[in-house]
Formats: sequence, structure tokens, C-alpha cells
Amino acid sequence: MKREQLIEQIRKKRSYLCVGLDTDIRKIPSFLLQEKDPVFAFNKAIVEATAPYCVAYKPNLAFYEAMGPKGWESLQKTMEIIPDSHFTIADAKRGDIGNTATMYARAFFDVYGFDSITVAPYMGSDSVMPFLDYPGKWAIVLGLTSNEGAQDFEQLDLASGGKLYQKVIQEIAGWGNPEDLMFVAGATRVEELKRIREMVPEHFLLIPGVGAQGGDLKAVSEATLTRDIGILVNASRSIIYASDGLDFAEAASREAQVMQQSMSDLMPA
Amino acid sequence: MKREQLIEQIRKKRSYLCVGLDTDIRKIPSFLLQEKDPVFAFNKAIVEATAPYCVAYKPNLAFYEAMGPKGWESLQKTMEIIPDSHFTIADAKRGDIGNTATMYARAFFDVYGFDSITVAPYMGSDSVMPFLDYPGKWAIVLGLTSNEGAQDFEQLDLASGGKLYQKVIQEIAGWGNPEDLMFVAGATRVEELKRIREMVPEHFLLIPGVGAQGGDLKAVSEATLTRDIGILVNASRSIIYASDGLDFAEAASREAQVMQQSMSDLMPA
Repeated sequence: MKREQLIEQIRKKRSYLCVGLDTDIRKIPSFLLQEKDPVFAFNKAIVEATAPYCVAYKPNLAFYEAMGPKGWESLQKTMEIIPDSHFTIADAKRGDIGNTATMYARAFFDVYGFDSITVAPYMGSDSVMPFLDYPGKWAIVLGLTSNEGAQDFEQLDLASGGKLYQKVIQEIAGWGNPEDLMFVAGATRVEELKRIREMVPEHFLLIPGVGAQGGDLKAVSEATLTRDIGILVNASRSIIYASDGLDFAEAASREAQVMQQSMSDLMPA
Repeated sequence: MKREQLIEQIRKKRSYLCVGLDTDIRKIPSFLLQEKDPVFAFNKAIVEATAPYCVAYKPNLAFYEAMGPKGWESLQKTMEIIPDSHFTIADAKRGDIGNTATMYARAFFDVYGFDSITVAPYMGSDSVMPFLDYPGKWAIVLGLTSNEGAQDFEQLDLASGGKLYQKVIQEIAGWGNPEDLMFVAGATRVEELKRIREMVPEHFLLIPGVGAQGGDLKAVSEATLTRDIGILVNASRSIIYASDGLDFAEAASREAQVMQQSMSDLMPA
């Protein structure tokens, strides 16, 4: 999906919500376990219930990997039922040398048909570049993450000035462009989000940490929204596990709608 | 596999060779494409041919992921035929927040039965710790990698002194111990390997870059060998693609034996 198509979807739905499909077979409603593919059955119900209120879906690959080969079949079937109108993110955080990164790009872009993949920056340019060679596909590189461990390395002060995560964002912004590159920017500190937005005024930011991880949607949006909107805010557990009863899909739909309404209020008219 | 068992295997075989299973369906001998599972058939022949000369196998996950769900079946079957005497490394370079890292640990340790997984450090402690909770299992964290992109971030000078990769190794060494934690240390610069060895005198190092990537086995070994040996040197393409003819397994066996012999000469008597 191209940048202008994504922006068009956001404007049409007045939503920049991404729903994270962190589908854990031990957390889905127990009656689904009778289904042939419980994870797919859950995802299908969640996608149908939330599609009107979100513009993107982000399967968290770890949850599918943990189920062995059949987990990847559940993922593949899920990708087939996500409407073309929705941007898809493989939350895989891959990062490896050039020839290996090329294989990961093939896996997620060609085999599973994702629009984008999250990428870890540690190994540098040849671990990121292969994801930028695909027209209409995106690398979403980790800048600042929303977990506690972000303090350990991402926040280190560099001898040349600034912090590691700032250098990562600034450097990598030069390797791609706002048509093929986004950054992960955790929602934990609004001041830092403002500085990231100044550094990359045109790039989309994927912002996790607003739901179960505690970030505040209003403050986060005010710090990062651009005239092209320029953000995707992800919520996973707060939506998909809103209820563990028979009404799980309706509950997810309601949660997604509440977020969409808040986003609509925050977007320019 | 425990540290003492690994050391015992190394001493017995007089080899610290790890064979990287970067199995690319487009590179394996064409006659194997008639097999029901060509990747597994290739891996099986390579494992049988090289097992006497190596102590570890390292499937590169990208190559299996790029084949869709059936790639994971080839991986699972490969894991089943690797002898228990051999240490197994999931070269996956995973790294994510705590609950997701826990799912990755479950995938590679419980579902596929690997002894270890390579882990990316960028997201910090909660992305590494979940891999250390498994008795007899290992996290192998990226310290200094052997690719060109290692210059971009790993080599950055920190305000507190030293380079990022040195801080990563020093900090993370405190999170685990030499029984559950190794580091990836690329074979491109011998001086840097010496300094890494000084920083972590007891930890095993996984050293890539000696085969196709150009590092020199003798210099690398002299810089890093300890009284417990303390290193695994990986070679992938130079062994598994030594020939693309009918003799591919014999050629791989010969290459592995040459490396084993060199290692034996470098090891203390």
C-alpha cells in the first residue's frame, strides 16, 4: 500500500488505529477451542468486528511461531481475510546481514503478502536496506520502544551528542524516504515523541504502548499528528481481549470504536 | 545442553565447528528438487556428512520462513535428525518486549527443541531475560557482528567511554552467566575479538564470518580460545555449498573435515 492510499484510508475512516493481533491460544475464549483453527477463528471474528474502526492490523509473529508450523497457517489464513483497504504490519522485528534480510523480505512481502515489517536496527544498513527495495512495501524500524528495557541501550548518550535512538532515527531516515520507511516510537514519554516528530516531520510513526502499556492517546496524538496525520497508534490486548466471553467480538468492536471516536476528535476537521 | 557437555563434545571431537544451515532452495543441487521435501533432504545429507567434524548446527531461520508454513516443517524435521550430541542454535535474532520474548522462547526451546537462540539487544533487558529462564537453554546475544553495517551503530562511541557493542556485551554479561549466555562476536577484526575476550573471559563466543565472510580461522582462534575452548566458529556457505553436484555431501564433509583438522591443530593438546 502506498503512502497516499494509507492517508486516504485514515481520512475516510477518521481513524489511525492499528489493531495488534497478539493472538494467544491460552487467552482466547475457551469455546473457540472447538474450532479446527481456533486462532484463525478468533482473528476472523476480531477483524470483522474491528475493520470499520481501524486502518491497520499488526500480527505479532511470536504468537504464531510459538504454535509451530500450524501457527504460520493460521497467520496465512488471517492475511487472506484482512481486507485490501487495511495496511498490514508483520511485527517481526527482524534484523540480519544482507542476504538473510533479503530472505526475510521475501518471506513477509512475497509469501505472506504483508505491506510492512518491523525491523531491528542494531546490525546497521545492510540489515535494513533489503526491505526498502520493494515498491509499495515498508520497513518500520525500531527507534524508541515503549518497554522498560528501552532505558538500557536506546537511551544511551553518544559521544557525538544525542541519544542512541535519536541517532538511529536520524541515520536511517537517510536510507529510505517517507514512502517506504516508518519508525516505531513508543508512547511512554511525550517530550521524546515531540523531538522525534521534529527529526522526521514527514515519516509515519508506529506508536505502541497506548493500550495495555499505558500511554495517553490525546497527549501522544497532539505531539505527533501532522497535516498528513503521519501516525498509526497500535492497541492490542485492550481491544482483542476486551472480553473473554461469547461477546468477545462485540467487546473488541466497542473498544475499537471508542478509540476511533477519540481519534476522530483529535484529527483536523 | 549444558556448558560442560558442550565442552566435552568439543574436546572429544577436537572441533569447535558450527555448521550453518542457510539452506536456500535455489542453491541446493537441482536433482534434490524431485524429493518431497528438498530442503529436508539436503539438510539430512549435510548433517550426516558433517556430524563427525562439528559440534553444533545453526539453521538460519530466514531461509525457512521464506518458504511459508512448509519451511517450518522442513526445519522441524531437520531438528529431529540432528543428533543429541550436537548443540543447536536457532539463528533467529529475535528481540521484543517481555511477553513477546517469552513466546519466542517457547517457540524455539519448547516447540522446535533448540538449545539456544540468537537474540538482538536493542530493546534491552526485558527482551533478553525471558530466554535465560530455561535450564540448559541459552541466549546468544549479538555483540559485534561481521557485516558492513556493524559500523553504523555497533561501533558508535558512547559519552561514557567505549563503543556501543562493548557496552552491550558488558551490560548483558551481568544479566546471565556463562551457563546460559553467549555472545555473537564477528571475525572481522582480531584486535576487537581480543578485547571482547578480555571483557567476558568465561563466556562462549559464537564467531561467524570465518567462511564466506572472510575471517581467518587461526588469528580468530588465537585471539579467543580459552582453557575451556570457549568458542564456536560458524561456517555456512563454504561448507554446505562446497559443491552443487551429486557429490555435494562428500564435498561438505571434506570442507568440514579440513576445518576440524585446523581446529584440532589450534586446540591445546
